[in-house]
Amino acid sequence: MALKSDGAREKRAVVLLSGGLDSSTVLAIAQSQGYVVYSLSFDYGQSHRIELAAAARIAERAGVAQHRIIRVDLRSFGGSALTDEIAVPKARSVAEIGTGVPVTYVPARNTVFLSLALAWAEVIGAADIFIGVNALDYSGYPDCRPEFIRAFEEMANLATKVGTEDGVRLRIRTPLIEMSKSQIIHAGLALGVDYSLTTSCYDPSATGVPCGQCDACLLRLKGFAEAGRTDPLGYKG
Amino acid sequence: MALKSDGAREKRAVVLLSGGLDSSTVLAIAQSQGYVVYSLSFDYGQSHRIELAAAARIAERAGVAQHRIIRVDLRSFGGSALTDEIAVPKARSVAEIGTGVPVTYVPARNTVFLSLALAWAEVIGAADIFIGVNALDYSGYPDCRPEFIRAFEEMANLATKVGTEDGVRLRIRTPLIEMSKSQIIHAGLALGVDYSLTTSCYDPSATGVPCGQCDACLLRLKGFAEAGRTDPLGYKG
Repeated sequence: MALKSDGAREKRAVVLLSGGLDSSTVLAIAQSQGYVVYSLSFDYGQSHRIELAAAARIAERAGVAQHRIIRVDLRSFGGSALTDEIAVPKARSVAEIGTGVPVTYVPARNTVFLSLALAWAEVIGAADIFIGVNALDYSGYPDCRPEFIRAFEEMANLATKVGTEDGVRLRIRTPLIEMSKSQIIHAGLALGVDYSLTTSCYDPSATGVPCGQCDACLLRLKGFAEAGRTDPLGYKG
Repeated sequence: MALKSDGAREKRAVVLLSGGLDSSTVLAIAQSQGYVVYSLSFDYGQSHRIELAAAARIAERAGVAQHRIIRVDLRSFGGSALTDEIAVPKARSVAEIGTGVPVTYVPARNTVFLSLALAWAEVIGAADIFIGVNALDYSGYPDCRPEFIRAFEEMANLATKVGTEDGVRLRIRTPLIEMSKSQIIHAGLALGVDYSLTTSCYDPSATGVPCGQCDACLLRLKGFAEAGRTDPLGYKG
């Protein structure tokens, strides 16, 4: 942990911030737990690059200690509808979303993102990394499962200088992992998250209007409906 | 595994190739084991960027299926003599090298590199990733230890779509892990590795002349001496 100017210990955390509903809620939760937040976004060649602007707005509004955007070119590997010339699938409701791992899966994305968060955490002396993965309103991505997170944490403590020091244990914090989308929304609203700043759509218009039909939009809309609240975003059509 | 044009199975592997002695030997070992090699280098903000040209030469000479250089900006995190304005330590012999984790340690570097290799492996259908870590003539880096590699492999199989499929097990291959530097050199020479193409120095001149005094140079020179061979590289002074 880092020393504050008054000599007290400062609890620092790296928060993975995509600009979406989940990660924005995670940021608010981390702050509510007393963490000084260093938020991290990735310019990884995603077609929905507009989320980077959303992330920066959310970070600024939240008053994080630092916000970083790191470039890492996952597009050059391809293999996903989010980084390649593959169409994002559309449906009319959550019930229609296909089963199995969707084509929007980006190979090893959370592994790459957590690895870079780990690098930053070690440099700034943060023992905690927050990520908004969710196993309930489940995307079908293998790297959102609790067993993946546990394995990553185990590995992280063997990978780093800080992890080999006595008394320090790096933690991957997943406050949303057992929450439904509507529970996440309730938690975020209670903490003052402004969801009008967020973006979830995999296939927004050039000006950021969400499509309302991709998996991410459908899960978000279902969450707001179940929470009995109105999504502040305007949707196409 | 990928299908060859004649319908037979092609054994593909991603090989992390820094352009150094160890990774060049690993590439040759992977090929000698029948793997079709996809070599991967990183432009991560290292001050000894000259190694990227060496890696490309080695990959071309070896006739790999593809060679990729991925940009990932570890310099913006800092925290290492290899990516920051921290002097690379020099010594007169291996015995003088400091103990503990050296300042040339780049936080979470191998985790980041292996994660990106994992992404590419999944896209091209490779079940094996080769990395030239070594636990004997040990650099003092936590992410070169066998326990780290085992934990990463465990995590990788939970992280990916391919890792969750029946009958597929992703493997992190570390053929050098129990070898001394002189054994590595003997193995490489037997496989025809041209060490004049490689570069190991952390602090080379602008034209690539190695300093002969950093940890990497000292371990390399000791390895050649113990192997009873002459290092084909010319050193400063």
